[in-house]
Amino acid sequence: MLELRLVQGSLLKKVLEAIKDLVNDANFDCSGTGFSLQAMDSSHVALVALLLRSEGFEHYRCDRNLSMGMNLGNMSKMLRCAGNDDIITIKADDGSDTVTFMFESPDQDKIADFEMKLMDIDSEHLGIPDSEYQAIVRMPSSEFSRICKDLSSIGDTVIISVTKEGVKFSTAGDIGTANIVCRQNKTTDKPEDSTIIEMQEPVSLTFALRYMNSFTKASPLSDQVTISLSSELPVVVEYKIGEMGYIRFYLAPKIEEDEEMKFPQ
Amino acid sequence: MLELRLVQGSLLKKVLEAIKDLVNDANFDCSGTGFSLQAMDSSHVALVALLLRSEGFEHYRCDRNLSMGMNLGNMSKMLRCAGNDDIITIKADDGSDTVTFMFESPDQDKIADFEMKLMDIDSEHLGIPDSEYQAIVRMPSSEFSRICKDLSSIGDTVIISVTKEGVKFSTAGDIGTANIVCRQNKTTDKPEDSTIIEMQEPVSLTFALRYMNSFTKASPLSDQVTISLSSELPVVVEYKIGEMGYIRFYLAPKIEEDEEMKFPQ
Amino acid sequence: MLELRLVQGSLLKKVLEAIKDLVNDANFDCSGTGFSLQAMDSSHVALVALLLRSEGFEHYRCDRNLSMGMNLGNMSKMLRCAGNDDIITIKADDGSDTVTFMFESPDQDKIADFEMKLMDIDSEHLGIPDSEYQAIVRMPSSEFSRICKDLSSIGDTVIISVTKEGVKFSTAGDIGTANIVCRQNKTTDKPEDSTIIEMQEPVSLTFALRYMNSFTKASPLSDQVTISLSSELPVVVEYKIGEMGYIRFYLAPKIEEDEEMKFPQ
Repeated sequence: MLELRLVQGSLLKKVLEAIKDLVNDANFDCSGTGFSLQAMDSSHVALVALLLRSEGFEHYRCDRNLSMGMNLGNMSKMLRCAGNDDIITIKADDGSDTVTFMFESPDQDKIADFEMKLMDIDSEHLGIPDSEYQAIVRMPSSEFSRICKDLSSIGDTVIISVTKEGVKFSTAGDIGTANIVCRQNKTTDKPEDSTIIEMQEPVSLTFALRYMNSFTKASPLSDQVTISLSSELPVVVEYKIGEMGYIRFYLAPKIEEDEEMKFPQ
Repeated sequence: MLELRLVQGSLLKKVLEAIKDLVNDANFDCSGTGFSLQAMDSSHVALVALLLRSEGFEHYRCDRNLSMGMNLGNMSKMLRCAGNDDIITIKADDGSDTVTFMFESPDQDKIADFEMKLMDIDSEHLGIPDSEYQAIVRMPSSEFSRICKDLSSIGDTVIISVTKEGVKFSTAGDIGTANIVCRQNKTTDKPEDSTIIEMQEPVSLTFALRYMNSFTKASPLSDQVTISLSSELPVVVEYKIGEMGYIRFYLAPKIEEDEEMKFPQ
Repeated sequence: MLELRLVQGSLLKKVLEAIKDLVNDANFDCSGTGFSLQAMDSSHVALVALLLRSEGFEHYRCDRNLSMGMNLGNMSKMLRCAGNDDIITIKADDGSDTVTFMFESPDQDKIADFEMKLMDIDSEHLGIPDSEYQAIVRMPSSEFSRICKDLSSIGDTVIISVTKEGVKFSTAGDIGTANIVCRQNKTTDKPEDSTIIEMQEPVSLTFALRYMNSFTKASPLSDQVTISLSSELPVVVEYKIGEMGYIRFYLAPKIEEDEEMKFPQ
């Protein structure tokens, strides 16, 4: 039996909004550690990893490890029916082919049960090794989102270049070129506005803006985004989910034009 | 001669927004009692009845009973040109085939006259008998609107079940099922948030969500909606219009799947 | 070399939003006097004239007169990437076929360079003589915008009639007719809400609403609009741009139905 009660239910709503356009179907894995997901987008170019640690739930009961295949579009339809202040409980009986989402309004006057059919989804869990990155940029998530959106009106790819002074986002297209530089800024009175660069060596990598724009849908989850870059590795775009976990997007850099480095199938 | 002056013109704007998508053409009936309308939707499944009592108008002159056929889409186009704070006057000369809507801004600096052609519309006035209902639910109109919208993302019909404890809205569709329970709640400090159930006996009826969603467009007219249910009768969904009247929607319950109880043609 | 630095960069953003749908390509003319543009819409019915005086720029360097052909749609795409509080600098090297827009955030933490290709555009500069107008109406730009939009839901043309008492906007269409009268109102405590009429003689002229609605996209630039009317002349619809200039739209009145007075080609 599974019963996970999340007082701040809006977090789960935001998680679904962040990933439902990137991934159609995925297995949610439940264990003593937490509620997690790892899935690739349909073109096998981007990977998303989600973790909500068990400590972050008000009540967390998971009698045995469980993998629940869900259609994220349908799951999102149901979670949209939860109010932003609702408490959300995820429930599943052992061996059942359904999952139930329960939404309780703060005053307990309205209680909703949404039951969704589960799916069988083949998926292989990729081991993602901890890596050293040449450069790690932490910046306001809204700023990163705005930059990716702005550059998309000019070109299709973004070159992210990190030096000690700052991070540069560049693109080029039919109508011209664009460069946006964000300087390091360790403002301490408003830490959520700071831009902090940890750099071992300068790095410059190219990515498809389409995916970056998809990742930035996670911006409502966190004021800050962390971008970890190395020339040999997929970029990691990470949004913290309060104190309880994270959502991480991995995207392989573009090596040559019209060629995408793919994850193993 | 007809001249009806409504200081709170926004009420008339909201009435039109509430019914224009349900009914294309309808006769507005003017008498000493008030300004009223009774009309069926084009599929003859739902009925709308509107009453604006003469006492609610600042000035109400209606020399003889008059029935004015209007296209509600065109009427809505004109009323949208009135400001939300404008005073609206409806004027018609005896025997004229036009009606004039006059909009005065609160400071009288802007005065608009919109003249619309009238239509000849055949319509029979249904006598709606006063009935006893098995259950009457009064609840926040925004809550009812949200529930109908949410359930529409799962299924096509809603089962409304009333017990002493509360009212349950249920649906089912391809992706799963949903149940939303609102408990009786006689909160007195904020009467507009209360949910009050008057029940003679438990009742459970099925309705098309498409129509319910159409009715909820009247929500801006009133904080509360009243839903009157009996197993032998069409449901009545009523929104009060201030102190001056009401808009009532009638919808026959679904008896079997794919069959709609129709009003006599 | 050209370098124009505009602290209130949002003005340039608003200018582009005001004219980009009316004019596709146009030459921006740079001289010691200021940064200006004169262009006709593609159907040669409306003319737009823009002036941003050099004194309005924080820094204005223009070594020699320069005419830069730009696609306004592309220019607008780039300016939309500037924040509303950004400082915008327009830069061009002598003989270069590109122009650069630089956007600096107020705290200087984010600096963007957008480089756009210039175009060769044939254009003839029309001399617009200073004229005496029979009537000049100054009114709130939001009011004028609302009136043009409202009348468009009824008809295609607007008759603007000025008398000493006020200005009347009229239209007619299939569903009826509309007249909106704005009275002269020299309110002094809120000058931006005033409607002031200077009239030599009554005038009544007909214009295509499609163009008027296009002109009103300049409303965010100014609280007030000035409409100058004479029976022999194109109407001038003018929006001041702060203290530094103006945007003026010229539209020839309709003489007979289905005939538009055109500017010389």
